[in-house]
Amino acid sequence: MPARQMKLGAFFLTPGSHSAGWRHRDAIPETDMSFAHYIAAAQVAERGKLDCIFFQDTAALNGSGDLDGTGPWRPRTGRQVYPEPATLIAALAPMTKHIGLVATATTTYGEPYTLARRFGSVDHISGGRAGWNLVTSQIEDEAGNFGHDRHPDHALRYERAEEFFDVVTGLWDSFEDDAFPRDKETGQFLDPSKGHILNHEGKHFRVRGPLNLPRCPQGRPVIAQAGSSEVGKRLASRCADMIFTAQSVLSEGQEFYADVRARAVAHGRAADDVKIMPGFMAITGPTEAAARQTYEELQALIDDTTAMKLLARLCGDLNIYDHPIDGPLPPLPPSNAAKARQQHLVEKAAREGLSIRQMARYLGTSLGHQMVVGSPTQVADVMQAWFESGACDGFMLLFPFYTKPLEDFVELVIPELQRRGLFRTEYEGTTLRENLGIPVPRNRFAPR
Amino acid sequence: MPARQMKLGAFFLTPGSHSAGWRHRDAIPETDMSFAHYIAAAQVAERGKLDCIFFQDTAALNGSGDLDGTGPWRPRTGRQVYPEPATLIAALAPMTKHIGLVATATTTYGEPYTLARRFGSVDHISGGRAGWNLVTSQIEDEAGNFGHDRHPDHALRYERAEEFFDVVTGLWDSFEDDAFPRDKETGQFLDPSKGHILNHEGKHFRVRGPLNLPRCPQGRPVIAQAGSSEVGKRLASRCADMIFTAQSVLSEGQEFYADVRARAVAHGRAADDVKIMPGFMAITGPTEAAARQTYEELQALIDDTTAMKLLARLCGDLNIYDHPIDGPLPPLPPSNAAKARQQHLVEKAAREGLSIRQMARYLGTSLGHQMVVGSPTQVADVMQAWFESGACDGFMLLFPFYTKPLEDFVELVIPELQRRGLFRTEYEGTTLRENLGIPVPRNRFAPR
Repeated sequence: MPARQMKLGAFFLTPGSHSAGWRHRDAIPETDMSFAHYIAAAQVAERGKLDCIFFQDTAALNGSGDLDGTGPWRPRTGRQVYPEPATLIAALAPMTKHIGLVATATTTYGEPYTLARRFGSVDHISGGRAGWNLVTSQIEDEAGNFGHDRHPDHALRYERAEEFFDVVTGLWDSFEDDAFPRDKETGQFLDPSKGHILNHEGKHFRVRGPLNLPRCPQGRPVIAQAGSSEVGKRLASRCADMIFTAQSVLSEGQEFYADVRARAVAHGRAADDVKIMPGFMAITGPTEAAARQTYEELQALIDDTTAMKLLARLCGDLNIYDHPIDGPLPPLPPSNAAKARQQHLVEKAAREGLSIRQMARYLGTSLGHQMVVGSPTQVADVMQAWFESGACDGFMLLFPFYTKPLEDFVELVIPELQRRGLFRTEYEGTTLRENLGIPVPRNRFAPR
Repeated sequence: MPARQMKLGAFFLTPGSHSAGWRHRDAIPETDMSFAHYIAAAQVAERGKLDCIFFQDTAALNGSGDLDGTGPWRPRTGRQVYPEPATLIAALAPMTKHIGLVATATTTYGEPYTLARRFGSVDHISGGRAGWNLVTSQIEDEAGNFGHDRHPDHALRYERAEEFFDVVTGLWDSFEDDAFPRDKETGQFLDPSKGHILNHEGKHFRVRGPLNLPRCPQGRPVIAQAGSSEVGKRLASRCADMIFTAQSVLSEGQEFYADVRARAVAHGRAADDVKIMPGFMAITGPTEAAARQTYEELQALIDDTTAMKLLARLCGDLNIYDHPIDGPLPPLPPSNAAKARQQHLVEKAAREGLSIRQMARYLGTSLGHQMVVGSPTQVADVMQAWFESGACDGFMLLFPFYTKPLEDFVELVIPELQRRGLFRTEYEGTTLRENLGIPVPRNRFAPR
């Protein structure tokens, strides 16, 4: 039996996950909108045999709430515009062969029927490489684009998300695998006994079905989820195939890993069917010194005003600007934003005695995810330690800018992981599920 | 000055616009779901220098209302499943270079912000080749997939469609062309003076904006529209760049052409900025005899039960099965379905004295669009006559099945049109607007 190997995804938050990364001399800030650069980056990731590329999404100009017409919309940060990711992964499908294509889409707005069609279509077009990162809306700017003043409450968003998931996956089961004989001789295009009407009637949705799409190559696209709050973990352990989480302390990672796997088992799933992948930013180079230099260059570009906005957004009703920037992070009131991330911040600040400015810079550097600055060996050491001590199944890789840090990772760290037997040298299968080593779900309507 | 030339689109209704076309020996019925076949077909159309490929859409399994679990869902007809078209055109973008990519999406359900992002993203990804065919939902099966028992009334659907258009085009103007300097030196990523918040508040939508997407390569994607009812013509003449219509009698075509152009002028537009393209099905071959043979083969495959369902759907509350199939078409009561198509049927039946069966077969053959069976010369003659007598700017080509009739058209009819100087031999520009010869709309927020 082959040894257990890591699963790796490349997280795309163009033009960089580092708030000032786009200003680095090696950065290409146009990566946010340039399709040619997305193709190049996807092909680099595929050369590195990564499991998937993974696109974040916000259905708004993040930060537009700073003003109405007068002030700056975070004019110094990128991460503002990019192609809608479910559209982008469709376009990347024919330009790649093996790599999984995961896009984020909210469940707080929009219709499950439409989402099921779109992600199901990408799965068909890509031959079984689609993934849907199921999120609830958090950035308040989104609400105004969908006729609301504020998002529904956190608990209600998760309740809707769970029902949204049930409808979408139900629609994906509309047809059994062999429902379309398309038989010219008999004239039978569709075998109606293999088609099923969902007739979902719930609190948030009433959806009849069937979906006008055959069953997907993967049965259904891979479901990713990132919720780390109590209600988020409940949703993820029931629904997700892949969990993008945010632990940066090993013991926290181990605790989260054990907790979510136990929850999955309680939902009747196999623990190994949920792949837990914390975010991980490697700043590397041929030597430790080269890596350190890149890191120092990046830190010198950070603009505290921009970084403070990232922090302010996670502070709920507390006005962080009322507190001295070099003083300690005050207790944060309950917020309607990302609960688990908020808690992570408070704990980190307390544990490490960080000031408000330091917390802001921490967020501005790696969005609160683990970061390692070092040689390929040093980077691989940390990854191996986490992977072999029950803290994760792999990592979701963040990049401070594009595309050099991704190239560095593929050229320097991947071979080191492969030498250690920790990562594949060839794709195992043709679908994302096959590469992740997770099963095709049974069609709920099919006879056992 | 070069002579005026036709604009041609290829309408895709896989596996065929003819209700039994998929059963023809040359048909590939898997064209409905096979991405490889979509690529091949798009590339054939591009080899023929067509302006665009054009995908229909229904957000439901069309005909699912025939039953709930027991009867057949039109099991003998194709046109049931296909990739969601806005996703499909994104995937076709990197596999084509010149041809326009037009997808249908309803305004009756869904959110303008999401639609603006998706079609805008395709425009960016394709370098300015996207088009949106703006429709209102007509097939009643759709309502149940979006929490409704029936569609809103015809008038209300059009009212919503018009506001939907206003919001989407307003969002596409969120940024002026040069809003993103992405200047590493100054640190200015976005120039906030070039960004605009829409703040739309209307009867159907409240949408703040801005869209999180730079202005499109085409300013905005090309807008197509197919409404031919009174209210449909009003919408099309105000909003559409390209009108896919359904006239099969020359005088009707001339009347429609003059009417819509005059309406466009009344809206302050140039008459030539609206391209009017009636549907046109050519069944052709090297000789007239070969074309006739294909036609006879196709007609022999028509199944009256299936064809009658197409007719029944356009009959509103009248149960067509209560009338003798070889008797005359009775007067049709007002319906919530496609009004203009219904009227076209009634007039055609009266004019030509067609029976119910004949009308059903007519619909089953070309969906009620003009059809010509003949040699390439004969086909070109009809097209030329329409084009040169003020009845159209070109045609939207329908195909009874895929992909041979498309190949035949490109190999046999296109060269004949080119010989006559009626069609381009090279693309004029790089965007769909440039090839159609229509202007980039001014950004409503930009200083004049």
